[in-house]
Amino acid sequence: MNVQEIEALRKEIKDYTEAHLLPFWSKRTIDKEYGGYLTHFDEFGNDSGTDEKSLIAQTRSVFTYSQAYRHGFGGPIMKEMAEHGVKYLIEKMWDEKNGGFYWMMDRKGNATNKQKIGYGHSFVIYSLSEYTLATGDPIGLEYAEKTFDLLQKYAVDTNLGGYWEFFSEEWELMGAGSPGGDRKTLDVHMHLMEAFTTLYEASGKEVHRRKLKESIDILIQKIMHPVYGTGVPQFWADWSVAPQIKFDIVWGWDRFAEGGQKASAVDNTSYGHNSEFGWLLMQALRIGKFPVSDYMDNLKKAFYHSMEHGIDWEFGGVFVEGSHDGQVYDKEKEFWQQAEMLIGMADAYILTKDQDFLKAYRQVHRFVFDKMINFNTGEWWPLLTREGEPIWRHMSHSWKINYHNVRSMILSYEKLGEAAKVLANSN
Amino acid sequence: MNVQEIEALRKEIKDYTEAHLLPFWSKRTIDKEYGGYLTHFDEFGNDSGTDEKSLIAQTRSVFTYSQAYRHGFGGPIMKEMAEHGVKYLIEKMWDEKNGGFYWMMDRKGNATNKQKIGYGHSFVIYSLSEYTLATGDPIGLEYAEKTFDLLQKYAVDTNLGGYWEFFSEEWELMGAGSPGGDRKTLDVHMHLMEAFTTLYEASGKEVHRRKLKESIDILIQKIMHPVYGTGVPQFWADWSVAPQIKFDIVWGWDRFAEGGQKASAVDNTSYGHNSEFGWLLMQALRIGKFPVSDYMDNLKKAFYHSMEHGIDWEFGGVFVEGSHDGQVYDKEKEFWQQAEMLIGMADAYILTKDQDFLKAYRQVHRFVFDKMINFNTGEWWPLLTREGEPIWRHMSHSWKINYHNVRSMILSYEKLGEAAKVLANSN
Repeated sequence: MNVQEIEALRKEIKDYTEAHLLPFWSKRTIDKEYGGYLTHFDEFGNDSGTDEKSLIAQTRSVFTYSQAYRHGFGGPIMKEMAEHGVKYLIEKMWDEKNGGFYWMMDRKGNATNKQKIGYGHSFVIYSLSEYTLATGDPIGLEYAEKTFDLLQKYAVDTNLGGYWEFFSEEWELMGAGSPGGDRKTLDVHMHLMEAFTTLYEASGKEVHRRKLKESIDILIQKIMHPVYGTGVPQFWADWSVAPQIKFDIVWGWDRFAEGGQKASAVDNTSYGHNSEFGWLLMQALRIGKFPVSDYMDNLKKAFYHSMEHGIDWEFGGVFVEGSHDGQVYDKEKEFWQQAEMLIGMADAYILTKDQDFLKAYRQVHRFVFDKMINFNTGEWWPLLTREGEPIWRHMSHSWKINYHNVRSMILSYEKLGEAAKVLANSN
Repeated sequence: MNVQEIEALRKEIKDYTEAHLLPFWSKRTIDKEYGGYLTHFDEFGNDSGTDEKSLIAQTRSVFTYSQAYRHGFGGPIMKEMAEHGVKYLIEKMWDEKNGGFYWMMDRKGNATNKQKIGYGHSFVIYSLSEYTLATGDPIGLEYAEKTFDLLQKYAVDTNLGGYWEFFSEEWELMGAGSPGGDRKTLDVHMHLMEAFTTLYEASGKEVHRRKLKESIDILIQKIMHPVYGTGVPQFWADWSVAPQIKFDIVWGWDRFAEGGQKASAVDNTSYGHNSEFGWLLMQALRIGKFPVSDYMDNLKKAFYHSMEHGIDWEFGGVFVEGSHDGQVYDKEKEFWQQAEMLIGMADAYILTKDQDFLKAYRQVHRFVFDKMINFNTGEWWPLLTREGEPIWRHMSHSWKINYHNVRSMILSYEKLGEAAKVLANSN
C-alpha cells in the first residue's frame, strides 16, 4: 500500500463511522423510560424486545460512547449517552450490600442474576475509567477503583497467581465444572490487562501500574502458548491447560460441540484474540511506560501467527480459530475478530514496519466494508460464511454490542494515520 | 512421662503464669499518660526509657491480653488492658489517609516511621481478631477486616503468588535489597496463616477461609523445604531461594554477619520456627475444617526435624538454628524458640502419639523454668548460652514482648491437658 491508499481507507472509516455506525446507536439505544441502554436489535435495527440488560452490554456501551467522545467522534451526544449509562450502572446495577455489579437485569431495572462475574467487572473498570478520562467526571474512576479493590480482595488466587472469575452474589467462589470456579481463562486476564491499562491512565496510582504489570506477566508467563505465543483459552488452578468448556454464565456467543466442550478442546486459538492481545499489550506498555523491547518476541509471535494463519487471502477477512501450529478449524467470519484484526494489523505494521501487515489490514478492511457491514442499518452482521453471506442476522444482543467495532473504527483511523507517517518515512 | 508428671508440669505453668508472668505486665505496661503500652524494660523490670512504641509490640500486647482473657488467665484486668491497647492502635496508629497502621511511634504518639510493613499488619489482623473473639467488641474485627482488605489490594503478587512485605507510607512497593521490595519471606507468610486463622474464626466469612487455605498452600508448596519440610527464610519473587539478608526495617533481633547476610545464607532453618509452623498449621486446619490427613507428611517433617535436631538433650532447651539436613549452627538458647517448641511438641504428641515428643517437651519445659525465667522479675531472659547463662539481659523491647511466652504458657497448659487424656487412653 502507499500513503494515498491508507488515507483513502481512513476517509472510508471516518465517513462510515460518523454517518452510519454511531447514528445507528444514538437513534435507538437510550432507554428513556427505565434508564440504561436498549441493546437488542434485529436485522432491521428494530428492538427485538428481549427483556434483559447485561452488565457486559451496559458497560461496553459506556466505553464506546466515552471513547468516541474522547477521540472526537460522534459529537457531544456521545458524552450525554455515556453519562446516561453511568447513572444506570451506579444507581441500578451496583450491589450496595456486597459490593460489585449485578450480572443481569430485566429492562425495568430488577436484577435477574446477582452473581459477581470477573469478565463483567473487567469491563466495569475499563468503561468507567474511560468515562472519567473522556468527561472529567470523577464518579467513573471512583467506581472503577472500588471494583478494582473488590477483584483484588475476592478474585485473586494468592497462591498460584491469576484471578478466579465466577462468584456468587456474595463473592463466594463457585464450584467446579460449568459454574466455572475451577478454571482460569485467557479472556478474563486479557480484559483485566485492558482494564488496568485504562485505570492506570486515569488514576496514575502506583498500585494500578503494579497490578497492570503483573497482569501482563500472567499473560506472558502463564497463558500464551510457550512455543507459538498464541492464546490458550482455559486453564486449571495450577495453569495446566484445561479442556475448553462452555460456562453456565456465558459472556460470548460461542459454538461448542454436544456436551459443552470445544471439538478441539485443548489445541485451539483465536486469530482475532491474538491480534487483540498484541495491540492491547502495546497499549499497556505505552501507558505503563514499560520497555517494548522486553516483549518484542511476544508481540511478534501474536501478530505474525494471526496474519500468517488467520487471514483469508482469497475471500478477505479473518477466520475464527485454529490450532496453535497453524491449522484452520473454522473459516467462518465473525464480527469481533474482524474488528480486532484491523487494530492489531495496523499496530503490527507500526511496530515492525513489515508491509505484509498493511496488506493483511487491507484484506480485512475490504471484507468488513464490502461484506460485514449491513448498510441497511449501519451495524455489522454478527457471523458470515467464509465467502461473506450472513449466517446470524441480529444487529445486537447482550453479547454483540458496539464495543469491538466502534473501537476498531476509531483506533484503526488513528493508527492508520500513524502508519501512513511510518510508511512515508520509510520510503 | 506419665499423667501425673504432665499434671505437675501444668500446675507449674499455671502457678507461674498467674503469679509471676502476667503480673509483670499488668504492673507496668499501661501508659496512662499517652495511651498504649510501655514495652521497654531492663533486667530489673524498670522502664528503660526507649522512646518508641512499635506496631509489633503494641499489637502483640493486644493479642496477649485478649488471649489470656479468652482462655481464663489473668482475670478481668486482661480485658481492660486489651481495650486500652486497641483504643491506642485505632486512634493513634491507624493512617486515615492511606489506610493501614504506622510502623513506629514515639511515646507521646507521633508517628516516627509511617511505612506499611506486612509483618506488622499480620499482627494487626491476628490481635484485633483475637480481641473481638475475647471481648465481643466488634471494633477489633472491623479493623482486622479493613487490614485484610488492604493486604489483598496492595501486598499480593497476583502473578507469582504470595505477599510482598515492604511498602512506603502510601503502600508503594519498596526497592530491591535491604529495603526488602524484591523478597518474600517465610516469616510473613507463616504469620499471615496465623492471622487469617483467627480472622476466619472471628468472621466466619468464606473469603477469609479461602485466603487462609491459600496461605497454607503457599507455605506448603513454595516455602517449606521440598525434601526436609523445614522453613526456608527468604525467596526472590519467583520463589527461588534468596540469600538471607537483614532488612532496613527489622522485626526481630537477629544476628547477621558483616554485610547484613547470614553466614549460612541459603541453608538455614530455625527449629523454633518449624515447630511454630507445625502447631499453627494444626490450628489453621482445625479452624478452617481442612482435613489434617492432607498435611500429615508436612506436620510430621516439621515436628520431627525440630525434635531430632533442635532439642539439646544434654543441657535442655532448643537450639537457635541449623542446616536443613540437621547440622546445628547456633547452640545458644533464645526465648521465643523455647516458647514455640513447647506448644509444638505438645501438639506433635497429640498428633502422632509418639512419646518422644513428650520427652522433648519436658526437655524444653525444664530449661525454661530452671534457666530462662528470671524469677526476680517474672519475665524471661532474651538469650542464654547453651548452658543457660544470660547473654542479653533486657526483659522487653520492641522485638521482645509477651506474645511468645504468654501464648506458650496458655496453650501448653491446655495442650498438655489434652495430651494427658491421649496418654491415659493409650495406656
